[in-house]
Amino acid sequence: MVENILIEKLLQNDRRTVARAISAVESGSQASIELLKELYSKVGGAYRIGITGPPGAGKSTITNQLAKYYRLRGKTVGIIAVDPTSPYTGGALLGDRVRMNEIGQDPGVFIRSMATRGSLGGLSRKANDAADILDVAGYDFILFETVGVGQSELDIAQATDTTIVVLVPESGDSVQAMKAGLMEIADFFVLNKSDRPGSEQAVTALKTILMMKDHDQFSWLPSIIKSVAIENTGIEEIAGEIIKHNNYLIKAGKFETKRENHVRNRIKEIVEDQIRKKLWSDDGEKSLNNSLEKVVLGNLSPYHIAEEIIENFRKQL
Amino acid sequence: MVENILIEKLLQNDRRTVARAISAVESGSQASIELLKELYSKVGGAYRIGITGPPGAGKSTITNQLAKYYRLRGKTVGIIAVDPTSPYTGGALLGDRVRMNEIGQDPGVFIRSMATRGSLGGLSRKANDAADILDVAGYDFILFETVGVGQSELDIAQATDTTIVVLVPESGDSVQAMKAGLMEIADFFVLNKSDRPGSEQAVTALKTILMMKDHDQFSWLPSIIKSVAIENTGIEEIAGEIIKHNNYLIKAGKFETKRENHVRNRIKEIVEDQIRKKLWSDDGEKSLNNSLEKVVLGNLSPYHIAEEIIENFRKQL
Repeated sequence: MVENILIEKLLQNDRRTVARAISAVESGSQASIELLKELYSKVGGAYRIGITGPPGAGKSTITNQLAKYYRLRGKTVGIIAVDPTSPYTGGALLGDRVRMNEIGQDPGVFIRSMATRGSLGGLSRKANDAADILDVAGYDFILFETVGVGQSELDIAQATDTTIVVLVPESGDSVQAMKAGLMEIADFFVLNKSDRPGSEQAVTALKTILMMKDHDQFSWLPSIIKSVAIENTGIEEIAGEIIKHNNYLIKAGKFETKRENHVRNRIKEIVEDQIRKKLWSDDGEKSLNNSLEKVVLGNLSPYHIAEEIIENFRKQL
Repeated sequence: MVENILIEKLLQNDRRTVARAISAVESGSQASIELLKELYSKVGGAYRIGITGPPGAGKSTITNQLAKYYRLRGKTVGIIAVDPTSPYTGGALLGDRVRMNEIGQDPGVFIRSMATRGSLGGLSRKANDAADILDVAGYDFILFETVGVGQSELDIAQATDTTIVVLVPESGDSVQAMKAGLMEIADFFVLNKSDRPGSEQAVTALKTILMMKDHDQFSWLPSIIKSVAIENTGIEEIAGEIIKHNNYLIKAGKFETKRENHVRNRIKEIVEDQIRKKLWSDDGEKSLNNSLEKVVLGNLSPYHIAEEIIENFRKQL
């Protein structure tokens, strides 16, 4: 049983409690799981937005400007950055840091960065758990900033109500985005740095690719919004498109289905995470080490050993 | 039991048999697992090289030039491209395609590209299995080209004898590489496009970062090689550094330890892959669907459902 005072403080958006609760879910401790279970009936109020795209497209700047836009309208914003190239995660130039501090000191904004390395596949679970905490704490919007390369980053950006893919007008960028699977997950596109040459051609190329996708008069056709985020140009249009997309989801009866699908994927992640934990507990690691010698002697392949380990796991589970 | 004729044809490097065997291991079929088990005692002759780095650094060009370099010296080369932005995987500009075809038609080169999406985490397993096939078929060098963003791509580049991290002299590139975990996995660096401005500063920045790492007179200190791969400058130096690193590994007694560690990680991957397959078989998916309703009704969290599923799995395993 989780202490009621903790839940109460979370519901009151007590900043230190929120930070501690997120650290706890990152650790994946049993206590944090109990907390998440107990909180779940209160989750669902926040609107979740994924912002993804190739490195250098300006995702952090857009995240920043969008957060400021919402703040000016009295809304609160939680930011979860899982982008290894993001200023939130520390690897940034001074300019970015300053900008980040600007909104980071606003009590209506909560920023959390998450390491992308060594997470053993639990990254997506952690990001979603952290979002649940922010959701319960009452943040109106939750922005996930992820770099759109790598499966888990795509998963996170996609496990939202609206997914924005940010591109820049560099030649071939849209084609590369297509290869990386970004085209399929975008609810709409932002062509950032659109004051650069090649911007019109990039929009045309994107439109051509989008028109090739199957669609009828009832489907949502992702639009392309031009922005120069660093000058705050196009941010209002982005916020407007998010509302438009939200309205479409509700009208088309797709909002709940989308959230159900996310829950489905989340359950799978949790199951796999927990089984992985059981597998490679101290005993599991020991039996792996014992088996290794057999491979090295050259008689047995990794597949042979894997079968042995699964057999042992079966007995132990 | 695997047909002996298939193994014989693989050992003779029959191109169609190699291609079919790789497709089989990509599918993860039981037959392919039997094949891999049987082949394993013949694996180990190829030298494996990982080439990774941020998008746009010129990894494909270096892979190409290095392959040509080895070919000119009578060596055969297998290339496994798991980079969504690589020309091998299709999303490239015309120039890249032409270059790729050039070496792609050489019978001493075998190129295989692998999708990075929808792989459900099996990407690394598939890449290593495919490398085993190429290894048995007798290729002298196996080059893995992966984009250095995303955990599984890093894993693949790292599961090699020598890992090369390719950077370009853009400002902040080295810092971002550090954040993305590239610094820790590099056996040496290639500063490509080193005819661009900022090249000297980039080398200095890299060196500074490298000197901060713990090292003594016995450790391998990654060097930095400047290249302009598109003009074939620096390729010989890269090949030389690979030999130097190989010699170091052998002399320091680290070659076998490194390969053992890779086997260890590979076993873990195989185990997790196979358990995942068992988990989400038809029955597993059905029980997940049944449970979903409970979440939607708002009474149970994903963590509750996950526990149920693990409990069912325990009974069924």
